[in-house]
Amino acid sequence: MSTEKQPAGRPRDTEAAGAIKAATLKLVRERGYGKVSIAAIAAEANVARQTLYNRWNTKANLVLDAVFEETAQYADTPQHDPNQSSKSQLERFLAQVFTHLTENGDPIRALIAAAQDDHAFRQVFSERFVKPREKMVTDLLRNAQNNGEIAPTRNVEMLSSFVHGAFWYALLNGDPVDNDLARNIAGEIFTHVPDRSV
Amino acid sequence: MSTEKQPAGRPRDTEAAGAIKAATLKLVRERGYGKVSIAAIAAEANVARQTLYNRWNTKANLVLDAVFEETAQYADTPQHDPNQSSKSQLERFLAQVFTHLTENGDPIRALIAAAQDDHAFRQVFSERFVKPREKMVTDLLRNAQNNGEIAPTRNVEMLSSFVHGAFWYALLNGDPVDNDLARNIAGEIFTHVPDRSV
Repeated sequence: MSTEKQPAGRPRDTEAAGAIKAATLKLVRERGYGKVSIAAIAAEANVARQTLYNRWNTKANLVLDAVFEETAQYADTPQHDPNQSSKSQLERFLAQVFTHLTENGDPIRALIAAAQDDHAFRQVFSERFVKPREKMVTDLLRNAQNNGEIAPTRNVEMLSSFVHGAFWYALLNGDPVDNDLARNIAGEIFTHVPDRSV
Repeated sequence: MSTEKQPAGRPRDTEAAGAIKAATLKLVRERGYGKVSIAAIAAEANVARQTLYNRWNTKANLVLDAVFEETAQYADTPQHDPNQSSKSQLERFLAQVFTHLTENGDPIRALIAAAQDDHAFRQVFSERFVKPREKMVTDLLRNAQNNGEIAPTRNVEMLSSFVHGAFWYALLNGDPVDNDLARNIAGEIFTHVPDRSV
């Protein structure tokens, strides 16, 4: 499900879309989500405002696409590596995610905020951004459970909610989202089983 | 730390403040946070708009006070009860909190959203609303750790973040915040120790 009003067509449209998304990320990082207007993005991207509106109907959808595209480039699904404990894999994955969150914390917090006021946007945000990331962690934990690194009685969906909830909670309350948090989360999720990486 | 601009003075002021807060909760529940104006609240409470502005400088602060006052009446610190396991106490406490969240989910989500755009408000929200609730759970878990219901190696601050994070995450993503969630959270926090209540 896409938030774009129409698919990319002629090459010129695709080029304009790329310039618009780059301008969006640049301005939102520099000024903060709330202080960036559609007009300012169009000016920065050097396109007519109508070109932008042809494709995105709200600022939230545009920012979602811009952040989403960049995220897709960095957040690979964690690959199972038999030489590494699942605990280490989770910690490394979270550290990657947190680096991106620290760079893009403001637009991501703004997207979460925008989703609270707009049910349709919340659904798109959930389907395109939240649920795919949640699934990556749930899959990692289920794999760990199959390997015996997590007790068979544990509820991996709930553990996955603990992982995401903990860093959303830190992000939204202005607490640090850093390597220490990655280590502490992984440590408590895997606390009761021996670390196989040592 | 209060968000009110001045303390309650004469009895008439206190009465007006009560009427304003009641009107705020009523309208926000009926229409949703985003659709309620300061003017509408003043009209509903039958006070001059200036009376309201004398006391609250933003809608977010007013809604925070209204929700906070109501919350203070219901969310007692969980009392330690030696006849009940800490797991049961946590589950019961969360079920209470979730009943309130289900009634006030929209204003509370709106407060979390408002806090993302306004650093000063985020700090007040954190100090008056978030941290005191977090401490209740951390204290309960620390007590459980002292009783041997949680292993001494566990990081109770992180576990408390898991608890709060899990229901914030559900709330903000539009997932159910109900008795099942309370049971699942308590079950995973206390999963590795015997339930002493049976």
